Amino acid sequence: MSTKVETATRAGTAVGLPLERVDAGEKLRGQARFTGDLDVGRMLHGKVMRSPLPHARIVSLDASRAERLAGVVCVLTGRDLLDLPSPLYGHALKDRPIVAIDRVRFAGEPVAVVAAEDEATAEAALALIDVEYEELPAAVTIEEALAPDAPLLHEGPQRAGLFHGLGELGEREGNVCYRYHIDRGEIEAAFAHADVVVEGEYTFPAVYQYALETHTVIAEHRPDEITVWASCQHPFLVRAELADLFGLPLHRVRLIVPYLGGGFGSKSYTKMEPITVAVARKAGRPVRIRNRVDEAMLTTRRHGLRCRMRTSATAEGRLLGREVELWLDTGAYADNGPRVTATGGDAAPGPYRWAAYRVDAACVYTNTSPSGSYRAFGATHVQWIGESQVDEVARRCGLDPLELRRQNLCVTGEELRAGGKPLDADLIGDVEKVAEAIGWGRPRQRWRGRGLSVGLLAAGAHPVSNATVRLESDGIAVVLVGTTEKGQGARTVMAQIAAEELGLPLERVRVQGADTRYTPYDRSTGASRSTTLAGLAVQRAARDVRDQLARIAGSDPDPDEYVALMRRHFGFAGGELIGVGEVRPRGTGSYAEGPVFWEVCVGAAEVEIDPETGVVTVLRTATVADVGRAINPKLVERQDEGATLQGIGNALFEEMLWIDGQLANGDLLEYRIPTLRDMPAEMTCIVVENGDGPGPYGAKGCGEGALAAIPAAIVNALADAGVPMTELPLTPERVWRRIRELEKEATGG
Amino acid sequence: MSTKVETATRAGTAVGLPLERVDAGEKLRGQARFTGDLDVGRMLHGKVMRSPLPHARIVSLDASRAERLAGVVCVLTGRDLLDLPSPLYGHALKDRPIVAIDRVRFAGEPVAVVAAEDEATAEAALALIDVEYEELPAAVTIEEALAPDAPLLHEGPQRAGLFHGLGELGEREGNVCYRYHIDRGEIEAAFAHADVVVEGEYTFPAVYQYALETHTVIAEHRPDEITVWASCQHPFLVRAELADLFGLPLHRVRLIVPYLGGGFGSKSYTKMEPITVAVARKAGRPVRIRNRVDEAMLTTRRHGLRCRMRTSATAEGRLLGREVELWLDTGAYADNGPRVTATGGDAAPGPYRWAAYRVDAACVYTNTSPSGSYRAFGATHVQWIGESQVDEVARRCGLDPLELRRQNLCVTGEELRAGGKPLDADLIGDVEKVAEAIGWGRPRQRWRGRGLSVGLLAAGAHPVSNATVRLESDGIAVVLVGTTEKGQGARTVMAQIAAEELGLPLERVRVQGADTRYTPYDRSTGASRSTTLAGLAVQRAARDVRDQLARIAGSDPDPDEYVALMRRHFGFAGGELIGVGEVRPRGTGSYAEGPVFWEVCVGAAEVEIDPETGVVTVLRTATVADVGRAINPKLVERQDEGATLQGIGNALFEEMLWIDGQLANGDLLEYRIPTLRDMPAEMTCIVVENGDGPGPYGAKGCGEGALAAIPAAIVNALADAGVPMTELPLTPERVWRRIRELEKEATGG
Repeated sequence: MSTKVETATRAGTAVGLPLERVDAGEKLRGQARFTGDLDVGRMLHGKVMRSPLPHARIVSLDASRAERLAGVVCVLTGRDLLDLPSPLYGHALKDRPIVAIDRVRFAGEPVAVVAAEDEATAEAALALIDVEYEELPAAVTIEEALAPDAPLLHEGPQRAGLFHGLGELGEREGNVCYRYHIDRGEIEAAFAHADVVVEGEYTFPAVYQYALETHTVIAEHRPDEITVWASCQHPFLVRAELADLFGLPLHRVRLIVPYLGGGFGSKSYTKMEPITVAVARKAGRPVRIRNRVDEAMLTTRRHGLRCRMRTSATAEGRLLGREVELWLDTGAYADNGPRVTATGGDAAPGPYRWAAYRVDAACVYTNTSPSGSYRAFGATHVQWIGESQVDEVARRCGLDPLELRRQNLCVTGEELRAGGKPLDADLIGDVEKVAEAIGWGRPRQRWRGRGLSVGLLAAGAHPVSNATVRLESDGIAVVLVGTTEKGQGARTVMAQIAAEELGLPLERVRVQGADTRYTPYDRSTGASRSTTLAGLAVQRAARDVRDQLARIAGSDPDPDEYVALMRRHFGFAGGELIGVGEVRPRGTGSYAEGPVFWEVCVGAAEVEIDPETGVVTVLRTATVADVGRAINPKLVERQDEGATLQGIGNALFEEMLWIDGQLANGDLLEYRIPTLRDMPAEMTCIVVENGDGPGPYGAKGCGEGALAAIPAAIVNALADAGVPMTELPLTPERVWRRIRELEKEATGG
Repeated sequence: MSTKVETATRAGTAVGLPLERVDAGEKLRGQARFTGDLDVGRMLHGKVMRSPLPHARIVSLDASRAERLAGVVCVLTGRDLLDLPSPLYGHALKDRPIVAIDRVRFAGEPVAVVAAEDEATAEAALALIDVEYEELPAAVTIEEALAPDAPLLHEGPQRAGLFHGLGELGEREGNVCYRYHIDRGEIEAAFAHADVVVEGEYTFPAVYQYALETHTVIAEHRPDEITVWASCQHPFLVRAELADLFGLPLHRVRLIVPYLGGGFGSKSYTKMEPITVAVARKAGRPVRIRNRVDEAMLTTRRHGLRCRMRTSATAEGRLLGREVELWLDTGAYADNGPRVTATGGDAAPGPYRWAAYRVDAACVYTNTSPSGSYRAFGATHVQWIGESQVDEVARRCGLDPLELRRQNLCVTGEELRAGGKPLDADLIGDVEKVAEAIGWGRPRQRWRGRGLSVGLLAAGAHPVSNATVRLESDGIAVVLVGTTEKGQGARTVMAQIAAEELGLPLERVRVQGADTRYTPYDRSTGASRSTTLAGLAVQRAARDVRDQLARIAGSDPDPDEYVALMRRHFGFAGGELIGVGEVRPRGTGSYAEGPVFWEVCVGAAEVEIDPETGVVTVLRTATVADVGRAINPKLVERQDEGATLQGIGNALFEEMLWIDGQLANGDLLEYRIPTLRDMPAEMTCIVVENGDGPGPYGAKGCGEGALAAIPAAIVNALADAGVPMTELPLTPERVWRRIRELEKEATGG
């Protein structure tokens, strides 16, 4: 896409204003419809039978008793997939069967689906399916999966998915499905001549991207035509995968996406759609599958990580080199693991002026539930590690961590990756702002600490978005854009952009939901890309309409004249003006161009530790939303607050635990998510608007940075309080044990 | 729209070829979905209670017994409309209540609607609604309605509908809701100096536009949002009327139009949509109303007509003047009556070089079911009358009717109406072709006769159409256009146009059905406008895509390269190219510009009369489809054949009959429609392609002309056989009586 900043050419009616969300009314009144609210007619209900074992061969499967239960229409099993071109899917690697075929690779893997007239019957029928398993040795942890004698999860050559997009597909080595390397500068030299070397081993847990709405899919399969209503973030990518799986052209697969009740990456790419289509195909009627929370937790999660990192510097605090090894646990199937691995690798050095760095990252299969995207993926995994080493360097050099960052951070315009996009943000300015917000440098009490953190997230995913704007004959502009509204306010922002360009009040703009049969292409909703890319497409489409109006009027028309102008143009009260907007990569179009923009991940936190219990309380946080231009400042702040709260959860208590290959805390009673009680007393979001983004009006995306920044700031604040940690989450037990350990070390114990 | 002929610039892949219909497969396999096939979930079934009286005041209405019936959800009555801005609709005149309010104006008028869980319950509940009527005097015929003491159907000032489009709205005079006048030249002089004057009084019956699929509507009314699935021809005009009725902006009303099982005008404009929305609004759930054939026959029909006409000529057969009075019976509500009246008025002079003509046409309310559009409306009503007078002039002058037409017909480029579109067809060439096809001039047997007829139909309605073409990343072009597929082959033709422009085979083009939420505006599907106007919009949109491809490629690309080009353009396997096409009036945009094109109505017939029974057998017919360019010659021929058969029905036996204000033959057992047994042994359709149309590749619409031409040719053939008729249909009884009459005259009885 163009890097030129496209600024508004008329007085603002919408952009920059903290307007109320366009969907607020219908959501508050309970009128907004989510996938689970739909009844498409003749609809059956599907329930999934799941593997009880982490790794096993299916010796036999007999669904005949279930099929005889009154109200059951059919039972889908792996045998029903034999006529497909290939029953495997996965946008990066085609490694996942629609439903288990002869083998299961994690406890919770779908083995069969019952479609019945109601959900209770479907549920009851699950117990009537007879499956005999032959248990296989399982590799549940990264260590077990990398062991020389580890059981292999997948055999045979790797097959690239439709959106592999990560260069040449390497050979699978054992259970490693993807490797990512960066090697810049003379890494040995950067350590050989260093005065200070900090090193350590770190663990980041698997966590769950909890969204209020679970995955819900309704599918209808008619000959040569698939219609899917889904709570999915990336309708066009899902369309492509379904078309590929079921052997249809793109236009024969229709994805309709109502409102989403949250996503956070859990609904990115293809999740429950293939299995729902497959059972609907067998049933010959529409089928809905609605995950319970415990099922959703088995459907996707964030990668757990093991990391070895070392950082070197001069005695004066000049950073020299960083060496990183990362292992990400992607579960039984790759899902977005390769991309998370690459993004984590890219984020690991941090935005510093290194003499050299080297990253070796590996994405590892384990016999656990598959891992995908989660807000600020990759960056959240590693920023806390890198930033804790930066702070440790500062401590060893006797420098203020803020001062050390001032000296070492890259500055605007500086090259971050060879040939990639230069830095398009003012990191030093940003970190100074959050430092000030939490009272950096002021005296602090014992067991309190303050921490800063700075990072970058390669944002925007692949920059392809189309949009159209239809100005109807009643003067209302209808925006067709594929962005999905998942609670982040995308429809409001798109409406504001179109309103601004057309000089219309917000209530005269309507943003329609995504329906791939009609809505123009948009790659995906995620990676902070919607405002920047889809928004730019909308801006261009709206501007196209405005240009048409100007040609009709012979001058720049007043919005109050639009209806009359169109009536004259068309000679009656009908017709519409259609504007088209396109966004695409400027050059080769590969990711090698670097990201669409760098999303800053800058935060600060002050914490208090209760030394008797190990309980950590986050007293205050500050984050920067360096958005270039805030289309809607209120929505920007809400984004940062949400990410901050998720960052607190990731840092302090969220962790998925497996015992004997079984997810042991797979529901909301046992898996603790942040609540309002976890909010810090003081939460500051600083909106920075330098107009330096590639999106409309100089905007760039937001909403992810705080999630990467806050855990790192909290870890650094703990270290500042005297309790350095290398394992997340910072549960009271872990912190308490670490305090005891440190006491022992201090007393020479 | 532009008059420039836009010709194909690449070798044809589709246009001009008799390709198989794109919907043939799914229709043959029973997979195509019509509105009645849909189940939208939680759907109720509505049945309409109808007035038993032609004119009455509703004294009381009590639906409480019906509402108490198990399975009944609600009963809609006129009282439920009180909160609407206005409960009256009508695109030309707002004169029709959604459901009767205090008064009924025809036997069969909807008085209440029951919504119930199933159709049988709804039907059963109708008997439980207690209505007390006070009968009013009724005016069932034109004569009764025009009588000085006639009961008035409507009081108060007239209100223009949203699409009145016929100049200043006059005062209603009694039961006349619209008058149309043309006055050209010195009409008195044209008769004063004439050698020959032919005059007569004529009757054309009310007939029914029978389509296999009856009107079917499913409506859902949610707060601020209406969704309607309807078998309607004009989704965008219906949208506008519903938005107006229910007080919503256009984008809050969504019309989804699946395949239609025939229309012929019966599904043009707004029919069952408002009543279905109103009952769904009350029910709070989707409701389907599906007319039976007897209900469809009470919903719309063709206008009956009374006509006085006289025609003058010189002894040498030069036509001088024509004076016409027309009265059209529009039933209880105007519907499309004003436009039918104006079109009939325009068609009445016929395409001859007159010294003068005068037309006085009136649209008259009667206490019968409302009349709307029916294929070739206006022209069918009057062409047989005018052409029978032309033949009579020829007989009196001793001239061959073909020769007389050669001398008097307008030629290409000649002005037909002051300031209107000049003649864009070769009428003399056309009539010579049909004459030759039926063996004109060859000797004939007693009781056989041959007839010719020539007319013109102002076609195209208002020329506003938008379209978009999306070239998807798999190289398949998806056409979004609002034209409805009602069996005429519109999707095939649109696909052929897009395929041609893009150089793609037909199977790589997909035309999506109309959904006003997403599909670009198209005024309507009717008036032979789709190929010409929507087709032109599609051509322009496809050409826009082709231009984009050429810019990407740097040259005119091979269609085989599209996928690779797009992959390069977007840098991955996603994104789409969107082309936009717009068609609008070239000048002021008013109808005063004259029609988009003149559709020729040229036909010939040979008939045989059985003098003992009066039975008329049509032996052979010939028609001209003067289409400029046949996008699909096979579809053109099928259109002409269908119109020919309907013309035979209109001429020979179709007639709606009222007894005491009750439709007496209101079902298919008693109302006779043409069947395959009525097909002439020889049916010739001559496709004329002079490239002189304003549509794509010089095309113009077709499919209506034969319906106007054939009754006229049959009437002339009867006169040629010695049995001139002035009243349609030519039932055996009427013909037999006329033969007896003529015998009496001949024998001086």
